[in-house]
Amino acid sequence: MNLHNPNAGAPSLPFDAAHLDDLMEKAGIDVLLITSKHNIQYLLGGYRYFFHDYSDAIGVSRYLPILIYPLGQPEKAAYVGQSMEVYEQQNERFWTPYVTTSSWGTLDAAAIAIEHLRALGLPVGHIGVEFSFLPYDAARALEAAFPESRLVEAYFPLERLRACKSPQELQLIREASERVVDSMIATFSALAPGMTKREAVARLRSEETDRDLVFEYCLISAGQSLNRAPSDQPLGAGDILSLDSGGRYRGYIGDLCRMGILGEPDAELEDMLAEVEAVQRAARGPIRAGARGGDIYTPALEAVKASPNRAHMHFVAHGMGIVGHEAPRLSSRTPVGYEGYDADLPLQAGMVLSVETTLEHPRRGLIKIEDTLAVTQAGFEAYGDRGRAWNGSAR
Amino acid sequence: MNLHNPNAGAPSLPFDAAHLDDLMEKAGIDVLLITSKHNIQYLLGGYRYFFHDYSDAIGVSRYLPILIYPLGQPEKAAYVGQSMEVYEQQNERFWTPYVTTSSWGTLDAAAIAIEHLRALGLPVGHIGVEFSFLPYDAARALEAAFPESRLVEAYFPLERLRACKSPQELQLIREASERVVDSMIATFSALAPGMTKREAVARLRSEETDRDLVFEYCLISAGQSLNRAPSDQPLGAGDILSLDSGGRYRGYIGDLCRMGILGEPDAELEDMLAEVEAVQRAARGPIRAGARGGDIYTPALEAVKASPNRAHMHFVAHGMGIVGHEAPRLSSRTPVGYEGYDADLPLQAGMVLSVETTLEHPRRGLIKIEDTLAVTQAGFEAYGDRGRAWNGSAR
Repeated sequence: MNLHNPNAGAPSLPFDAAHLDDLMEKAGIDVLLITSKHNIQYLLGGYRYFFHDYSDAIGVSRYLPILIYPLGQPEKAAYVGQSMEVYEQQNERFWTPYVTTSSWGTLDAAAIAIEHLRALGLPVGHIGVEFSFLPYDAARALEAAFPESRLVEAYFPLERLRACKSPQELQLIREASERVVDSMIATFSALAPGMTKREAVARLRSEETDRDLVFEYCLISAGQSLNRAPSDQPLGAGDILSLDSGGRYRGYIGDLCRMGILGEPDAELEDMLAEVEAVQRAARGPIRAGARGGDIYTPALEAVKASPNRAHMHFVAHGMGIVGHEAPRLSSRTPVGYEGYDADLPLQAGMVLSVETTLEHPRRGLIKIEDTLAVTQAGFEAYGDRGRAWNGSAR
Repeated sequence: MNLHNPNAGAPSLPFDAAHLDDLMEKAGIDVLLITSKHNIQYLLGGYRYFFHDYSDAIGVSRYLPILIYPLGQPEKAAYVGQSMEVYEQQNERFWTPYVTTSSWGTLDAAAIAIEHLRALGLPVGHIGVEFSFLPYDAARALEAAFPESRLVEAYFPLERLRACKSPQELQLIREASERVVDSMIATFSALAPGMTKREAVARLRSEETDRDLVFEYCLISAGQSLNRAPSDQPLGAGDILSLDSGGRYRGYIGDLCRMGILGEPDAELEDMLAEVEAVQRAARGPIRAGARGGDIYTPALEAVKASPNRAHMHFVAHGMGIVGHEAPRLSSRTPVGYEGYDADLPLQAGMVLSVETTLEHPRRGLIKIEDTLAVTQAGFEAYGDRGRAWNGSAR
């Protein structure tokens, strides 16, 4: 473990350390060993290692970055990176006083982390790790090294830490959203009958890439089909299309859905999109700092109930930021083994919400709008809030 | 667990099942629970789930696909996918007789896999898992469900299975390589003094994306600097540049390095690239099916020794395919806890080698060529084998 900058004073942290310490205390965590890309990005002030941004596997193992943060002692924090991250170290991308860049896999990374914990005599009674982002072999190494310690789930304290975005983060999410919508509008105008759904997605991917986004995914439906996977399904004249894409700008995601048509929408299609729009508008009503999170659902579900196509409609709202679905969690879905429901808590300024209404019409196809709304004291700001009517090359 | 196609006979497998069964028997594995994207891609015949191709985190956990393959019983194989993979199921992308698409995280995916193992009464004495790709919480769930079972490392049997590529796979690696090199040549011709390394990488990323590659990474050096991270370092007139990029075509990686210059190379630079080229040429000499893998190193290291700049040169050769560094492993590097060294084994037709020579010259900068060589009975085929001299906009 090399001292990165041994003469520096207290490190300057890119996050609210007092908040993190408070969350760690409440979760009973003595020291964090963070291994997820999204939390490492957050705790290292926007850092993502370019070489393993897309893929983890390499050689006989995989990339495993580890950020070590002892409660209340940022001066003993460490980052365990892969060998070629020495280039990033040279570029002073790490605030942690201790940095190593020599690992090529899970076990050597874990060994370096264990050595650091021992060398600095850090408290290891309760080690906070992300259970679904810590590989089995690294976990076994930790348990073998510290048989008296207990591994504690750190996913939720870290999610809380990230829930309210800073002005800088909001600006990145705004940029991501604007650029995703611009890419969609450009894509709709370039589509023509005979192209496949896969080719339409490739076009969107190029449009996003040219706007300096990292394309993440695109769900796409075309015509009457409700299937949203890219495939060789050809686009037909008159087909409606939904593009629901995530694109990342400097680590923050833009995730919106817009509609297009290869021709002109008829009155029924105009009405259907208006029904979806009515739900989306209703959901915006209650949004402001201090409002109960779940209250978004009340007018939205009333609007669904008032819709002629209510039997085929679905509404959902969820937080977003670095992860596509993160706090605040406003729907009731909780996977096996977890608890957590933010619907009863007040919204806070800086939270970012993704609000989605989907009409899966058995005869006309999938009609969906997804918007991004940042909570403010007075209400909300809508990012990329355009292109919400029928987009088409002919219009 | 739904039967995908209950009336089908024996499933048609996209890999050599007899080979896999043999490897499982040798490793003492009764049933495989595969959770890495690269091995799922291989075992599902090229499948990658588009929604989580880039990012794993979602909601309160992460994407965890699980492929279950019982030794010698492909008719009981299963795929545990995420909820929206139902679209891929509708498109008949899975050969496994059993498919579920309802998970949103690690623990519900593990619970479905456990239920399948129990419902079909599959043998679970030795469960093959990839230790560095199985999350801690899913591993704990498995261990709790089957306390008498032992988890066995399945990484190496699967790597052996993938080592020799089929003609179809070779064609994809060839395409990936050609397109990466085309993208680099286009990028070199578009560079100009004042652009930053980050902008140069953004250009390469667009060029690769426009050629239907998934851009994975680019290591870039410029001028005299040996730093290879994208950064705000500006390109200067006369600067040399190395672009070392991985781009993926339908799941297979192209990974090559080419040199460029913002101007004309002087005699010293021509000589230095010729030294690198001499090592690359020497390494090709022994390559053919049946040759000892490590024998590539003998003439290559002799050429290094004969080079005036031997003190600053580094040579390495390694297998590649779905993973950037995979079998055959020809260098002596073995991470903590693993054994494995293919240098003493014969090369086989269909293996693909990445061969790299790097000159880190303290005064002139980083000069590197990386080539992709597919082993044949008679020798080798070089993919994307052009642009190996100095590339530049002025030439």
